[in-house]
Amino acid sequence: MVKKAAAIKEVLTTSYKGVRDFYPEDMYFEKYMFAAMRHTAENFGYVEYGASILEPAELYQAKTGEEIVNEQTYTFTDRGGREVTLRPEMTPTVARMIAAKRRELSFPLRWYSIPNLFRYEQPQRGRLREHFQLNLDIFGVESERADIEVVSVAYQLLKNLGAEDADFEIKISDRNLLNYFWDSISLPISKRRKIEKIIDKKAKMPDEEFRKNIEAEAGKRAAKIIEALDSGHAFMEAIGSAESPEIAKRLINIVDGLSKLGVTNVIFCPTLVRGFDYYSGFIFEIFDKDPSNSRSLFGGGRYDNLLKIFGAELVPAVGFGVGDVTLLDFLSTHKLLPEYRSSTFLCLAVLDDEYEFADILAEKIRDSGVSVAIDYSEKSIGDKIKKASTDKIPYFAVIGSTEVKSRTIKVKKLEDRSETSFPINEAGLHALTDYIFKI
Amino acid sequence: MVKKAAAIKEVLTTSYKGVRDFYPEDMYFEKYMFAAMRHTAENFGYVEYGASILEPAELYQAKTGEEIVNEQTYTFTDRGGREVTLRPEMTPTVARMIAAKRRELSFPLRWYSIPNLFRYEQPQRGRLREHFQLNLDIFGVESERADIEVVSVAYQLLKNLGAEDADFEIKISDRNLLNYFWDSISLPISKRRKIEKIIDKKAKMPDEEFRKNIEAEAGKRAAKIIEALDSGHAFMEAIGSAESPEIAKRLINIVDGLSKLGVTNVIFCPTLVRGFDYYSGFIFEIFDKDPSNSRSLFGGGRYDNLLKIFGAELVPAVGFGVGDVTLLDFLSTHKLLPEYRSSTFLCLAVLDDEYEFADILAEKIRDSGVSVAIDYSEKSIGDKIKKASTDKIPYFAVIGSTEVKSRTIKVKKLEDRSETSFPINEAGLHALTDYIFKI
Repeated sequence: MVKKAAAIKEVLTTSYKGVRDFYPEDMYFEKYMFAAMRHTAENFGYVEYGASILEPAELYQAKTGEEIVNEQTYTFTDRGGREVTLRPEMTPTVARMIAAKRRELSFPLRWYSIPNLFRYEQPQRGRLREHFQLNLDIFGVESERADIEVVSVAYQLLKNLGAEDADFEIKISDRNLLNYFWDSISLPISKRRKIEKIIDKKAKMPDEEFRKNIEAEAGKRAAKIIEALDSGHAFMEAIGSAESPEIAKRLINIVDGLSKLGVTNVIFCPTLVRGFDYYSGFIFEIFDKDPSNSRSLFGGGRYDNLLKIFGAELVPAVGFGVGDVTLLDFLSTHKLLPEYRSSTFLCLAVLDDEYEFADILAEKIRDSGVSVAIDYSEKSIGDKIKKASTDKIPYFAVIGSTEVKSRTIKVKKLEDRSETSFPINEAGLHALTDYIFKI
Repeated sequence: MVKKAAAIKEVLTTSYKGVRDFYPEDMYFEKYMFAAMRHTAENFGYVEYGASILEPAELYQAKTGEEIVNEQTYTFTDRGGREVTLRPEMTPTVARMIAAKRRELSFPLRWYSIPNLFRYEQPQRGRLREHFQLNLDIFGVESERADIEVVSVAYQLLKNLGAEDADFEIKISDRNLLNYFWDSISLPISKRRKIEKIIDKKAKMPDEEFRKNIEAEAGKRAAKIIEALDSGHAFMEAIGSAESPEIAKRLINIVDGLSKLGVTNVIFCPTLVRGFDYYSGFIFEIFDKDPSNSRSLFGGGRYDNLLKIFGAELVPAVGFGVGDVTLLDFLSTHKLLPEYRSSTFLCLAVLDDEYEFADILAEKIRDSGVSVAIDYSEKSIGDKIKKASTDKIPYFAVIGSTEVKSRTIKVKKLEDRSETSFPINEAGLHALTDYIFKI
């Protein structure tokens, strides 16, 4: 009985498998990444939008790769009999929103969002059942200036987070190059998507398994495909005869444009495949150069035809997503995370029941923008100081009858234990604010 | 066929019933409210935490009111056979998190979060299937100082959003007062919770329906209950004989403490009932005085026993929630919402294919913190100015061969069409930044 009760309690304190609890320190790093995402996106003129995680299931049945709808989504029937899906990605949602108001909206649009997304899969490094993702897109610009811009926003986000060019690599290609290759080896249309999905997962399986999977789908053409993938040269030769010059020119323009903006860690990777069916041209992924993080950090590209599903006229679109789980792994691997600090600046410990005085004083200090927590506990002063240190609150002061009588507050800087006194009056509290903000 | 296709498209562009799409203007107001919530909470020393919306269904079966689990939650079985619930409220989650790490955490804790919450119900004014809510709690303080503090944080949030004292009313009570009343009329324990739930919904039904509902549950005691509710005096008389002086003293201390902090729009409301079973003492709600918003804006109270469910020792806790839907109605009713403004400061329109020059210039301006969007469209300059105005971007400039040759940029303030020129060099761009930030 006792054992059973303990087991129940343990179940109850455990979160759902594959999702995270964000204790204040975890939340600090989430907020740090989100702030950099918002700052970078807005700096480039993107405005934030949002939507519910609940979407009608039809939205995904209409457009995304079948794998997503059939094997990996959280889809259920609500109490009114409607099929609902927890969004596995944001692109269908933003396409739906834009299609719904396409007559009122004035293009081009630069939009971003930081949604949480859901996939039912085995949790593993870099991959959870719920993650957050910055999604950033330009709608209404056909030219490669937009492709250049979204890549440079991605680049700038990493730079703003402290990364060096050598820490990451931007792989680019065009979704149609692969089609030219399939044409050159006369691969039946019906086989193409399946083989592309295998190629997309190449990095995640042993070479032998990869060869077997390709053979199972491509039969006698497997050797040719594997050779072409192993050697970019063989690949280019194979498609060289096809009519790809326009795509090549556009890719060169993109590499040139990026280089002029100082973005030079760009590699042309003809076998790049993106997981979703809707990509229609330029595609890119950004990888950590550290081998411990093998999943792509960023993934994106052009999806000019997606809005047609909603009956909207063609709206050129290009964008990317970057997830919090892989980004946090990247920042942690490269030691780019800041130290945790509390959002509270000052802890006031109350002595001698001087609660009223402390409350009113705290209110005055808060008015000047300094965040103040009052420790109402019965702990000793020593323990209160210890707690404030553990909580990473930088300043500490006592309010007791001595302070009330002398109308003086002595502020201790917990980092070095130095103390500074301030009279409790208007000028004194001004001086205290200045002192604290000069951290 | 065409008709059917059109119908499908319409379905596809509609969001799920009872949830919201946040276009950039909608998002602006959400962000405005969230920023005020974060600022106020952190100013009082609260630190932010977070958690997934997915919770094991057992978490709710173990503790909350039955209504929630049985009729209003989104609960489904995942692909692995686990029962999952989309959280309908945050309190069980935060209690679970604290119980899980109670040995590492140092109390008292001041924690806040802005989760989204889900309930399956008919959407109506102030009530949707998904809403966001500021949840703010102190754990580990038994004294009424904590009750006073959470109410004053709620009060300060409304003041920070521009509200006047006359715009809202804080109703307080103690969950146990009602118990004393039930004792005084010898109401069987089995009837109490049901009758409390009817009282909780009193404002939402006609008097006649209310009377009938009470009669159905309370039989011959109905008249006494209704009389007591109609007259606070009758209520107090009925419980006067019971042993409530301690509760009364505590409530008086809370009213006094709030008054000394300048919070005076507080009303003692003995019939206040909160929807959840776990409240154990002090409770409060804040109401808009405008009759068009009848739902409570804030609701909260003490739930000292909740953590015991998880096998943790008793942890005193008090906190509140305030939802974005009702808060937005409040701000809009009292005309307290700011005007929408873009997060983009400057729109650069490119002429004569000077894209490269514009891109590099934009990058330099962005470095100084000014957000710049480049208009890559083929529109006329007039239309580009119109678009920037519609988007509420305050400044506009053209980059064409004239500007490249003269190395001068002419910035138009769209509000009054005034123009100011800046040389394109380090000093000039400094001056431009100063000019724009002096909005």
